[in-house]
Amino acid sequence: MNKVKIGLAGIGNMGTNHSKWIAEGMIPEMELCAVCDSDPNRLEWAKINLPESVVKFSDASAMFRSRLIDAALIATPHYQHPPLTIDAIRCGLHVMSEKPAGVYTKQVSEMNEVASKSGKVFAIMYNQRTDQLYRKMKEIIDSGEFGQIKRTNWIITNWYRSQAYYDSGGWRATWAGEGGGVLINQCPHNLDIWQWICGMPVSVRAFCHEGKWHDIEVEDDVTAYVEYKNGATGVFITSTADAPGTNRFEVMLEGGKLVCEDGKLHIYKLEMNEREFNRINKEGFKAPAFIHSIVEPDGQSSQHIGVLKSFAAAILRGELLIADGIEGIKGLSISNAMYLSSWLGKMVSLPLEEDLFLDELKKRISTSRIKAQQ
Amino acid sequence: MNKVKIGLAGIGNMGTNHSKWIAEGMIPEMELCAVCDSDPNRLEWAKINLPESVVKFSDASAMFRSRLIDAALIATPHYQHPPLTIDAIRCGLHVMSEKPAGVYTKQVSEMNEVASKSGKVFAIMYNQRTDQLYRKMKEIIDSGEFGQIKRTNWIITNWYRSQAYYDSGGWRATWAGEGGGVLINQCPHNLDIWQWICGMPVSVRAFCHEGKWHDIEVEDDVTAYVEYKNGATGVFITSTADAPGTNRFEVMLEGGKLVCEDGKLHIYKLEMNEREFNRINKEGFKAPAFIHSIVEPDGQSSQHIGVLKSFAAAILRGELLIADGIEGIKGLSISNAMYLSSWLGKMVSLPLEEDLFLDELKKRISTSRIKAQQ
Repeated sequence: MNKVKIGLAGIGNMGTNHSKWIAEGMIPEMELCAVCDSDPNRLEWAKINLPESVVKFSDASAMFRSRLIDAALIATPHYQHPPLTIDAIRCGLHVMSEKPAGVYTKQVSEMNEVASKSGKVFAIMYNQRTDQLYRKMKEIIDSGEFGQIKRTNWIITNWYRSQAYYDSGGWRATWAGEGGGVLINQCPHNLDIWQWICGMPVSVRAFCHEGKWHDIEVEDDVTAYVEYKNGATGVFITSTADAPGTNRFEVMLEGGKLVCEDGKLHIYKLEMNEREFNRINKEGFKAPAFIHSIVEPDGQSSQHIGVLKSFAAAILRGELLIADGIEGIKGLSISNAMYLSSWLGKMVSLPLEEDLFLDELKKRISTSRIKAQQ
Repeated sequence: MNKVKIGLAGIGNMGTNHSKWIAEGMIPEMELCAVCDSDPNRLEWAKINLPESVVKFSDASAMFRSRLIDAALIATPHYQHPPLTIDAIRCGLHVMSEKPAGVYTKQVSEMNEVASKSGKVFAIMYNQRTDQLYRKMKEIIDSGEFGQIKRTNWIITNWYRSQAYYDSGGWRATWAGEGGGVLINQCPHNLDIWQWICGMPVSVRAFCHEGKWHDIEVEDDVTAYVEYKNGATGVFITSTADAPGTNRFEVMLEGGKLVCEDGKLHIYKLEMNEREFNRINKEGFKAPAFIHSIVEPDGQSSQHIGVLKSFAAAILRGELLIADGIEGIKGLSISNAMYLSSWLGKMVSLPLEEDLFLDELKKRISTSRIKAQQ
């Protein structure tokens, strides 16, 4: 095998992009052999816009069993990510799933178990992990040079969506159709990057406001406070109604501070670790000296193309994935915990009580404005 | 009367500055006639450094009753602000108190009641209200041009203090001596400016970490979430261990965004109110257009001198105060609510349950490392 034969499940917003990128040869080690979509209009689009050699299916199961493909790329609505991934793996395929990994962690735990036992490559489309500035933040923190994390803070409110966006699909922003709002649709990348760089919190107190700015049943405004195992604290704020929004990610460490904002990474490096300075300094109002530097993007953020290339390389040559599919549960656990905390009105712990969360989610699905498939 | 004859109670850190400014004639309508301090070393300093004409007292009560002064400036430890203010007003004096107004609102309510009935001028040293950038923020928001507030966020962690600072006085950072940590000592200005510009919250959920970064019994790290009457939310984060710290104050409004950081005010003004845009826009991913402008300081922030001048002008000519003393209770109510929320582990409402707060504070005072006067 010198090219991965791939089948794409779902040719919606993201699926359309994926199909074009692969068909145009932007991922040299990947060949688009099949696509499927339950919507005849999208298949019609595929007939016109994709090469004739790409076989079109109206059913994912049939595509997985067609023997035309080695791997599946899942770009369907959120709820279908785990069952389709499980089905594809059981058909002997490697799988890359779009984000989020699923809607509730119980479903994703099952998916991860099947994937782990299969020996197949399982990846997730966390393309923001290729972002040079986030990689730099992770590299600095993982190196230990700045010591432990003391505080994290991400204000990520540049997700402006007006009512017209929410009105564009009956399943959008419903408990039954999407399983949530800004946390499940817009924020999976940020929640993943947050935990990828800073680690998983151990407790969460969140305030999710449902239908606050739009006529929707799910949350469009969230403030969450978290605590980490080492005692560090964090705040995550998101909304789809702030204009112009903010995207500012600050990490305070013993050895300085990192601030990623406006496409630049500001690095403030202390000359002495603050914990050490605190012990030895004798002057009441003196603070540790620091050096400020700025990292600007070098254009080396490969995004979706990079993630797809790494998926092919993992299948063909066993190279490391940019984002192992198993990792998808981490960011999802955080958003599940945020919902649960807000619904119960109290602090909740991680790992999450998966059954309790699912019970609460089901209550909301049962009265959802749409009764969608799951 | 063409000059206000003032007596200064307390010649510590701030009192020393006040005594010099007034003695040097920086407040032309004010004359320093007396000072008092219970510490003989500070009186010795006064003898050497202040004009001979300034009468020195070791007791505030005697100074208030000396008939040498028209007004008192209170710059003592926090707990003494209300009782000394009440005593001075009862002696027929006008009063300016340093911040905070007191340590618990019950005490400050009594002070405000006495002050309100007295007909005397009662002011508080909220010098940051003279800051040009904060005044500009308040002017924009009060004008209504940007519509209602949707979200407030203040990260104010540039209060670095090492252990040496806390070790410099036995009363420092104790429940009995100061009545709190970073909220009561460093943040009164910020809490006042926050409510002055954005209004009072109606509920507070705070996470105060006591002795987290220093060997102290009070809080040195706080994250608080608040909600306002109109449904807006807010976050306030402070610490004395972040290095280098952050001072970033963001207010999101229906008509745009204000961000005050690094000594500059960024104004993002939408061409159309977001609430209106949300209703009429038909394109899913479109956001309202905006204009970005920056206000830089013009050097017109008069700080302490300005507040003292306005106190004299209010006494002599009935001019408006920069900060009415009665207002001191507002910021204090917020910090009291933050403590109470954190101690009880739940959301608390404002106005505060003053007795409940005082009971909880007394528990902490009773086991405090120092048993100070109150």
